[in-house]
Amino acid sequence: MAALPDVVPMPGLPEAVTIYEVGPRDGLQAEKAIVDTPTKIEFIRRLRETGLTAIEATSFVSPRWVPQLADAAEVLAGIGEHEGVRHPVLVPNQRGMDRALAAAATEIAIFVSATERFARENLATTVDGAIELAVPVVDRARQAGIGVRGYVSMCFGDPWEGRVPIAQVVDVVRRLADLGVGTISLGDTIGVATPGHVRALLAALDEAGIGMDRIALHFHDTYGGALANVLSGLQSGVTEYDAAAGGLGGCPFARSATGNLATEDLVWMLTGLGVRTGVDLDRLLAISTWMAGRLGRPAPSRVVQALAAS
Amino acid sequence: MAALPDVVPMPGLPEAVTIYEVGPRDGLQAEKAIVDTPTKIEFIRRLRETGLTAIEATSFVSPRWVPQLADAAEVLAGIGEHEGVRHPVLVPNQRGMDRALAAAATEIAIFVSATERFARENLATTVDGAIELAVPVVDRARQAGIGVRGYVSMCFGDPWEGRVPIAQVVDVVRRLADLGVGTISLGDTIGVATPGHVRALLAALDEAGIGMDRIALHFHDTYGGALANVLSGLQSGVTEYDAAAGGLGGCPFARSATGNLATEDLVWMLTGLGVRTGVDLDRLLAISTWMAGRLGRPAPSRVVQALAAS
Repeated sequence: MAALPDVVPMPGLPEAVTIYEVGPRDGLQAEKAIVDTPTKIEFIRRLRETGLTAIEATSFVSPRWVPQLADAAEVLAGIGEHEGVRHPVLVPNQRGMDRALAAAATEIAIFVSATERFARENLATTVDGAIELAVPVVDRARQAGIGVRGYVSMCFGDPWEGRVPIAQVVDVVRRLADLGVGTISLGDTIGVATPGHVRALLAALDEAGIGMDRIALHFHDTYGGALANVLSGLQSGVTEYDAAAGGLGGCPFARSATGNLATEDLVWMLTGLGVRTGVDLDRLLAISTWMAGRLGRPAPSRVVQALAAS
Repeated sequence: MAALPDVVPMPGLPEAVTIYEVGPRDGLQAEKAIVDTPTKIEFIRRLRETGLTAIEATSFVSPRWVPQLADAAEVLAGIGEHEGVRHPVLVPNQRGMDRALAAAATEIAIFVSATERFARENLATTVDGAIELAVPVVDRARQAGIGVRGYVSMCFGDPWEGRVPIAQVVDVVRRLADLGVGTISLGDTIGVATPGHVRALLAALDEAGIGMDRIALHFHDTYGGALANVLSGLQSGVTEYDAAAGGLGGCPFARSATGNLATEDLVWMLTGLGVRTGVDLDRLLAISTWMAGRLGRPAPSRVVQALAAS
């Protein structure tokens, strides 16, 4: 059994939050090793035994771009449905939407960029172009009666442009909200967010009429501050946080060993704060330790490292 | 030049804080490798070129307990005095005080435990016994006209006892304050603090009449939450934080790879929050990279890892 911190609530925080697990998609797509399909399916099946209610399963991006996830349809077929657990899949464009619908996806996620340079480098388009690309995809999801999540990359800093003006992010988020996208996840893609920046962006969104119930936060622990940023998000009323089991993944642009906020680290702090997640830390630790073995390297998560050593 | 985060202040935080650097003492004493005396002296001399104003230099604990710091007098003589930089030294008892005074120490730090079990395991005494041991040391410091800092270990959790009642910590802190100890550093020795716990302990101290100007916070990043705990401390008005360059050190009781909060990670977040530290991150990074080379392993600091890779 993992040792857990004392529960000492902090006034003003939400009572419960949703952890949106991105390990199988965002995590594995950024790993050098290509994990075989049965292992991915087992990974997701085991993750949903932890109490997680939202696990992004895979991506229908072109296999030429992300060979790690070329088996998207097989993974989605292999995991099947599971009572009480959502399995969104990433969809980059109409071609991806064809594949996702053919694979009977029940929820999708689309992605855009807050900066022109990242839109060009990563999506080969512009900020406007990425949103226009999303319009017919969102329309088709609505026709199919399935939910749409939106990711906005580079909300706090851009490796080429540096500072990203808050108004620019608010504009992109507003346009996604106007399209009918459900939850919008604000990505700190290179890990440079700090708590005052998180607070200021959320305040600007709130002022622009975007409720905190529409927002999720996606932090990377590149500079060690992911959980401080989560605390700031909690204090502003955000109730959905993206995280990857074991801290899987990484950002090729930061060229750093550390990637997504680890689900274990998030669960640990939220447990101490008395914020309910519904996630069983022991089961999660066992899965991340197993996956680290498959990937042939230790999990970056501080909690996994601390408890594996104890 | 290190990339630095955007400065976006957060309302209600202090304008400036003191970083109390513990790398040369708390960091090196917990490293397996024994660093030679000239390297220690160079380490401290270089650290004080970064803008740090408080650098704990060494410990006059018995060399039988901590062979890593057996050269305390040589180190103190070797670094000399430096305008605007304090160099406290750790003193465990009267014998240590004899050696510290003979070595012309200008400030000392004493340490006690918040828990009986840690007092027994680590100090071979009781909670009361450790405080009694400190009384004549503090008296002699007062007679010599030098300042005294106090460390309280295990303020948030104990590896044997588990939960540490807040009232128990407040009692020990109050007794140190009554003795005339200046700043009292609350140690999260095994890294289990979470932000609500930090806030609750600080509120209890404030209610007991211990001003936040008497308090420093000493976090370990064992579970990834050190900076979230710093944020909580800032929100409660604490203006002094212990940290170790590069994240040097570790806690043998947690058997984890991660030890003290890294000074770089702290400076990075504080910079983003617009809280002044006076510390030059580039110089600090260069020192930690150099010391990691001496120790033959990468610095645990997330910021060092991210920026060394970039």
